[in-house]
Amino acid sequence: MSETTIDRTGVVGGDEGAAPAEQPVVDFRTSPEQYKHFTVEYDGEVAYVKLVVDEQGGLVPGYELKMNSYDLGVDIELYDIGQRMRFEHPEVKAVVMTSGMEKMFCAGANIRMLAGSPHSWKVNFCKFTNETRNGIEDATAHSGQTWIAALNGSAAGGGYELALACDDIVLMDDGSSTVSLPEVPLLGVLPGTGGLTRVVDKRHVRKDRADLFATKSEGYRGDTAVAWGLVDATVPRNSWDEEIRERARAAAATSGRPGGEGVTLTKLPRSIDGDTITYDHVSATIDRGRRMVDITVAAPTGQPPADAAAARAQGVDYYPLALARELDDLILHLRTNELLIGSWVFRAKGDQELVLAHDAKLAEWAEDWFVNEVNLYLKRTLKRLDVTSRSLIAVIEPGSAFVGTLLELALASDRQYMLEGVYEDVDPDASPATIRLTDVNDGRYPMGNGLTRLESRFHGRDEDLAKVRGAKGQDLDSAGADEAGLITMALDDIDFEEELRIVLEERAALSPDSLTGMESNHRFVGPETMETKIFGRLTAWQNWIFIRPNASGPEGALRRYGSGQKGEYDLERV
Amino acid sequence: MSETTIDRTGVVGGDEGAAPAEQPVVDFRTSPEQYKHFTVEYDGEVAYVKLVVDEQGGLVPGYELKMNSYDLGVDIELYDIGQRMRFEHPEVKAVVMTSGMEKMFCAGANIRMLAGSPHSWKVNFCKFTNETRNGIEDATAHSGQTWIAALNGSAAGGGYELALACDDIVLMDDGSSTVSLPEVPLLGVLPGTGGLTRVVDKRHVRKDRADLFATKSEGYRGDTAVAWGLVDATVPRNSWDEEIRERARAAAATSGRPGGEGVTLTKLPRSIDGDTITYDHVSATIDRGRRMVDITVAAPTGQPPADAAAARAQGVDYYPLALARELDDLILHLRTNELLIGSWVFRAKGDQELVLAHDAKLAEWAEDWFVNEVNLYLKRTLKRLDVTSRSLIAVIEPGSAFVGTLLELALASDRQYMLEGVYEDVDPDASPATIRLTDVNDGRYPMGNGLTRLESRFHGRDEDLAKVRGAKGQDLDSAGADEAGLITMALDDIDFEEELRIVLEERAALSPDSLTGMESNHRFVGPETMETKIFGRLTAWQNWIFIRPNASGPEGALRRYGSGQKGEYDLERV
Repeated sequence: MSETTIDRTGVVGGDEGAAPAEQPVVDFRTSPEQYKHFTVEYDGEVAYVKLVVDEQGGLVPGYELKMNSYDLGVDIELYDIGQRMRFEHPEVKAVVMTSGMEKMFCAGANIRMLAGSPHSWKVNFCKFTNETRNGIEDATAHSGQTWIAALNGSAAGGGYELALACDDIVLMDDGSSTVSLPEVPLLGVLPGTGGLTRVVDKRHVRKDRADLFATKSEGYRGDTAVAWGLVDATVPRNSWDEEIRERARAAAATSGRPGGEGVTLTKLPRSIDGDTITYDHVSATIDRGRRMVDITVAAPTGQPPADAAAARAQGVDYYPLALARELDDLILHLRTNELLIGSWVFRAKGDQELVLAHDAKLAEWAEDWFVNEVNLYLKRTLKRLDVTSRSLIAVIEPGSAFVGTLLELALASDRQYMLEGVYEDVDPDASPATIRLTDVNDGRYPMGNGLTRLESRFHGRDEDLAKVRGAKGQDLDSAGADEAGLITMALDDIDFEEELRIVLEERAALSPDSLTGMESNHRFVGPETMETKIFGRLTAWQNWIFIRPNASGPEGALRRYGSGQKGEYDLERV
Repeated sequence: MSETTIDRTGVVGGDEGAAPAEQPVVDFRTSPEQYKHFTVEYDGEVAYVKLVVDEQGGLVPGYELKMNSYDLGVDIELYDIGQRMRFEHPEVKAVVMTSGMEKMFCAGANIRMLAGSPHSWKVNFCKFTNETRNGIEDATAHSGQTWIAALNGSAAGGGYELALACDDIVLMDDGSSTVSLPEVPLLGVLPGTGGLTRVVDKRHVRKDRADLFATKSEGYRGDTAVAWGLVDATVPRNSWDEEIRERARAAAATSGRPGGEGVTLTKLPRSIDGDTITYDHVSATIDRGRRMVDITVAAPTGQPPADAAAARAQGVDYYPLALARELDDLILHLRTNELLIGSWVFRAKGDQELVLAHDAKLAEWAEDWFVNEVNLYLKRTLKRLDVTSRSLIAVIEPGSAFVGTLLELALASDRQYMLEGVYEDVDPDASPATIRLTDVNDGRYPMGNGLTRLESRFHGRDEDLAKVRGAKGQDLDSAGADEAGLITMALDDIDFEEELRIVLEERAALSPDSLTGMESNHRFVGPETMETKIFGRLTAWQNWIFIRPNASGPEGALRRYGSGQKGEYDLERV
């Protein structure tokens, strides 16, 4: 990576110490006691999240987080806040995001951090921040927890993009506060954390005004911002607290959240021993030579609890929640810390009936706030997989548990390989593998494009879709699964392992860039949504711009920012 | 451009000789007598387009066009064929695209050409080829001219992508012919001319099969290709001609094209004198210092002809056709040959009533095959503008003719500036400028996203859209146009020129890359189609991959192809 200028040695966050000094490990697990950059205050139905970024608290050495600018460490805390708000605070119906600084809400992603980061770091950072902002919108839409951006100071770049993820944006009318997207004029990059897309597709700002806005580094004050739709309202300082409280109360009044006891998200147990990562239900073993990781997800070992209250009482030990947390953490860990591991091989094992029993209760209790949160969390985690730039391969063998929720892992995969019969030399008496499709695969976990993974798989082939729907609830062996179109290939044990070896070798030999581009085109078929536009169009353009010399070259605007010198551009329009 | 390795000096095609030797001019105007790479045979309702690429006939020195591989020069001929088929051949109802080579339909874009081309050339080349393939689909959908790919040999990469643009794909069952997308495994880039998108979104190939296909360099033969939906049928050699003829006849039977006399597309008159490009109705003056071009489009100077037959008799002199041809050529010329000219400023002048009179007849005679073709050509030309990576600015002054069809140029622009009143020191007695919205702006020229430019402008703001629709047919002065939301800004003559000067200076100072990314996000709001996915998601990923060292670096797969050495990759997944 020729543009790497920061020595990332010494990046911390992890507590396992398993990684060598040159390969720092980012840990996405945190908790309020550890927060450096946020305070959270609870006032009945309303929570106040205050951004007070610790300038010296950057995740990586080499930059100061001035003016409430953020890096990955800040965003990890924001993500944690959102998760805890959902699970620990059933009483919270509106979340006010505001700043603890005077005159500055948030200056966006830290520019020196961006300028000094390798390309892969920038891309992963943007992906995670996008997911966190989508999570804010998901809470507003599906959790009865409306986020309100109370901009008590200027919101610039990623700061305004954070506001854009909220349902309601209020700007202080103090004669100085503005909203702005200065990325294009100051840095030569895009407002890539959803900014361009949300301005036109969510806020419905006219494209010529969006153009003016995104090229004017100083941004706009309240009157223009309201007139154009960039913010919803301006409020003077003297009525600020009252007005914000009132808007939060109004939003809370539309919520069905019941209050009561939350479920505490205790620290997720994880052990990293060499190249093996182990959680309670999920484990992963990295094979560095083959640049792949074997991921095994275990079915539950016990029946679901008696009712939703009992599920809540199980808390983080409730299997579906534990599964979501473990998968979520593993995806983030591998994505961020294991860039060279290009293929992820999924296996699901254990008792299929117990997966189905838990699935049935997730449906039966879906109205319960906690179970609703679990369902939404599983949905978001599977979506994280969809936008992960790794080749995903499902291996379906005897003893596998690819049914219902766990079958989504196979459907999210780029390929599905199923053993026909059994491994004669391992366990000739085993039962051949079967999979089972259920209603869970046909509605509970929509992808970013609004379709289920099943609908995406058969997009434009309505007859095939109708046929496979007819197979719901049946145990499909390799022939049946192949016939239904649910697997890529069924092979007997003589060919199976050899084929899989070849597939993984071939995959490891291909250009990682072209695989990323290919997979992200194949996975999102059919309709587009704001979310898929952000991860597709906007992100792809941003990645192109990030790698271009005009941004990241020695004379690029991103690298020169703050040096007193402007970027020098290759002036060709491409 | 550090990756430039080919000296493009000496590229020809232009006949004006206006450009200095270092800046070769590509001319998009051609005609059958000049074709090097195609033969076209007419057999009543069916035309046969045969690809017989001249190995030595490359547009740029440095590569041989072996195995029917193509470069921009080949594609310029294909574009010309499609245009002439529509205008010169009302009798043609089906077009069979096939190869004049044995065992090879087309090997796709020439790899040495790609490897040796600067980034901007690759991007422009792909954009034009994408537009040409979209044009094939447009002919099939709207002109009663169905394109059939008769693959009498292997179709690899761009060769198969060309087939994908056809309505019907037939592969010869000869024991050797295959279809393949070898870009990912062999070159480390994407099948970026619509390939990935059309495989899943048009052919509805399952994503896991699409994944197998796009990673298997040798591709698949007929049986698998049919089973997966990659082709529609296979036909043995001995019944090939008959079967293809039959399929063409069947397609022709669904067409409403009337036969009769076509309209000959004589060579488009154009003069380039220094930095001024002049056509009959369109002229452009480049200001290299300011990196901008002033483009003036003139309204018609006479009434429309008496009826559609009279319009046909006028042929290339029929104003709307001449306008489309001139704009089309200018866009292609500036895009390809004037990379440093970042801002295009549009003015429309002349008699508004005559624009409206012609517009009215285009609607009245829309069922006539020729007028239909003119309407479609205007639509495609405006779409070309939408995907042009230049800043587009409309200037509306006294004497302007931004009404109906010409108003689309303003609506396609990123910004619209309108003079309030008159230039007091130039012509104090002039009438202030007005614009007029008509039904033409509300349906005739949909963008790639399926919306009109008017609908895109007010996307998500239904009330504003209803209001502006209510203003149809009215002359709107600057206040009225501003009120209706049709212009960005109205300024009086004291401020107008100064503002425009500043805007253009500011634009010229911004990073061209970030402008390209920004504009392509702002222009395509709301829904997506296969077309916008190709120009948005697929193209953006491809551009990112093109610029990455894994493809275009000294050890990249694209650069090393054919050297006997495989690409060496940075193995990080990003």
